[in-house]
Amino acid sequence: MREYTVAILGATGAVGTRLLEQLEKSTIPVKELKLLASKRSVGKKLRFKGQQIAVSEATPDAFTGVDLVLASAGGAVSKRLLPEAVKRGAVCVDNTSAFRMEKEVPLVVPEVNEEALKEHRGIIANPNCSTIQMVVALEPIRQKYGLKQVIVSTYQAASGAGQSALEAMKTEARNYLSGQEMHGEVFPVKSEPKHYPLAFNLLPQIDVFEEDGYTHEEWKMIHETKKIMSGEMNDPTLKVTATCVRVPVVIGHGESVYFTTKTPDVTVKDLRALLEVAPGVVVQDDPKQQLYPQPLTAEGSRATYVGRLRADHENPGSFNMWVVSDNLLKGAAWNTVQIAERLVANELVSVPEDPYLG
Amino acid sequence: MREYTVAILGATGAVGTRLLEQLEKSTIPVKELKLLASKRSVGKKLRFKGQQIAVSEATPDAFTGVDLVLASAGGAVSKRLLPEAVKRGAVCVDNTSAFRMEKEVPLVVPEVNEEALKEHRGIIANPNCSTIQMVVALEPIRQKYGLKQVIVSTYQAASGAGQSALEAMKTEARNYLSGQEMHGEVFPVKSEPKHYPLAFNLLPQIDVFEEDGYTHEEWKMIHETKKIMSGEMNDPTLKVTATCVRVPVVIGHGESVYFTTKTPDVTVKDLRALLEVAPGVVVQDDPKQQLYPQPLTAEGSRATYVGRLRADHENPGSFNMWVVSDNLLKGAAWNTVQIAERLVANELVSVPEDPYLG
Repeated sequence: MREYTVAILGATGAVGTRLLEQLEKSTIPVKELKLLASKRSVGKKLRFKGQQIAVSEATPDAFTGVDLVLASAGGAVSKRLLPEAVKRGAVCVDNTSAFRMEKEVPLVVPEVNEEALKEHRGIIANPNCSTIQMVVALEPIRQKYGLKQVIVSTYQAASGAGQSALEAMKTEARNYLSGQEMHGEVFPVKSEPKHYPLAFNLLPQIDVFEEDGYTHEEWKMIHETKKIMSGEMNDPTLKVTATCVRVPVVIGHGESVYFTTKTPDVTVKDLRALLEVAPGVVVQDDPKQQLYPQPLTAEGSRATYVGRLRADHENPGSFNMWVVSDNLLKGAAWNTVQIAERLVANELVSVPEDPYLG
Repeated sequence: MREYTVAILGATGAVGTRLLEQLEKSTIPVKELKLLASKRSVGKKLRFKGQQIAVSEATPDAFTGVDLVLASAGGAVSKRLLPEAVKRGAVCVDNTSAFRMEKEVPLVVPEVNEEALKEHRGIIANPNCSTIQMVVALEPIRQKYGLKQVIVSTYQAASGAGQSALEAMKTEARNYLSGQEMHGEVFPVKSEPKHYPLAFNLLPQIDVFEEDGYTHEEWKMIHETKKIMSGEMNDPTLKVTATCVRVPVVIGHGESVYFTTKTPDVTVKDLRALLEVAPGVVVQDDPKQQLYPQPLTAEGSRATYVGRLRADHENPGSFNMWVVSDNLLKGAAWNTVQIAERLVANELVSVPEDPYLG
């Protein structure tokens, strides 16, 4: 059996530490693990399968001898280093938005479009966290009943902005609860000019604004959903619109998803039965037992939780549902490791002769 | 000029204290103010226009000589006592859901359907908090361009469940931040068998469940919106569906509202211009300045804030917007006092010969 030298790029962040944990639990036979990060984390040690592994600096040559890279160190780092890794023969699964919209880069959620992995040319992109959990819930429905339109409103946790942003939100909350003023210094987007507190507040801005008034996060949900589900980021036959809101939750994104099937005579019972056997989905939908997905109960799980399934009585074929998943696991680390598992299982861990180099 | 004897029923709660404050700021000439509450609050004193007023017990005879009642002491109390008040000649503005769906009871948001006040038979109902802010934002659009469909997802603050629920959420947050376990004891609904923490969590249940899987809060948003905007709680020409979620915010409900006009060639610019001069609306919609409605900035204001206006590029005539308002003011106390102001201004503070007695 082939064994793999794996590198984790950005090993010390909120997603990085979970990549390590998910890799440890995965079926991937790891021969050697390299932990790569920026200079300031060099020397730090992290535990993997009982061993202490020291973090080394992420340079182009650090990828020599590496078969598989799991990257989550920010878009700029991926853009600079992943082509170098590919040149050195490593297949890269990238958790940043750097290459998601490139035609040459498959954008993969294994439950939805695993077959797209076959076309990879060295880099595979992991979608945006809020996109992943939505398509896991929608794909079984699309396959069986067709999908005409999706209207989503998100409730996204602070940890989606990274570990230090999460800590900032907790500090804001502590200040508020002790009667002090809150100072927003990180949210909605660190690099933007204005900052607002997130604790006990709602911020309808995730990522920067596009010219048409949508945020880039909303743009990502629209175009990534189309690319993953129909292979074409501008597919006009699958209509998608999104409103993305940051909420003062630690871990776990919520999504209120309204969708319209192509078949108008579908019932909630049909959908529930379908989702109950769908890969990666756990149905939590029993109003009588007050059972529905919640961030606090989804935290730490790889599953996508679906509940609150309801028919729009005035529009046959249209439904509301509520979807929650751990944004750091299925939304990031687990989906990345799952892609790597599928690459290994399908013997796809090799860079083709015409690699994609950005 | 006629002066009025006013009674506040449920004067000591989160909404009650704000009723006092909004009444003090209102144009209503108050001759005498009576503060009524349950036995356990009797003797408590509250300040009104420089005077200390003692709370007395809410009994049928306490309404003798009262012209105008502002009620916010729970549905059961309103059901029992408001007919008694009406019998004694008092006109009642009720902030509970007790009478909202009665044909004989106008359900009023003054910016939308003030003229419905003329038909009152002693009781006027104040709508649900989440409904009010949505119809304030939608009505100018409906009047000018028509409205075919509304799909709303709410982000509702803890204070909507009352003062003690709000304190419970803060206690949960303090426990979480000091590394202790959180015990949900109040949310989602105190009288329901199961409770979950709200702090740093999302609860997709507000009020109890109906048979079809919608919560009663969602049912209210659907049917109250229809009754207020078209006078008929089941109007099939205005389609409405809702998903209501409780979020760990102190004050200020957020709403992601997707709507479709009857005129397909409306632009975002048209809508913004219209909303900028709409009564009760403040437009906060400048992505370049990162200006958009937030609960923290809406708190304490009577206005309904609207922003994030965007066209659904794939569905001409359909739009997304983000609406925030102080749920205790426009969502409750201010709308109640505003109804009373309009009753006074239109000389409608008198019980007709055929009163509605429940």
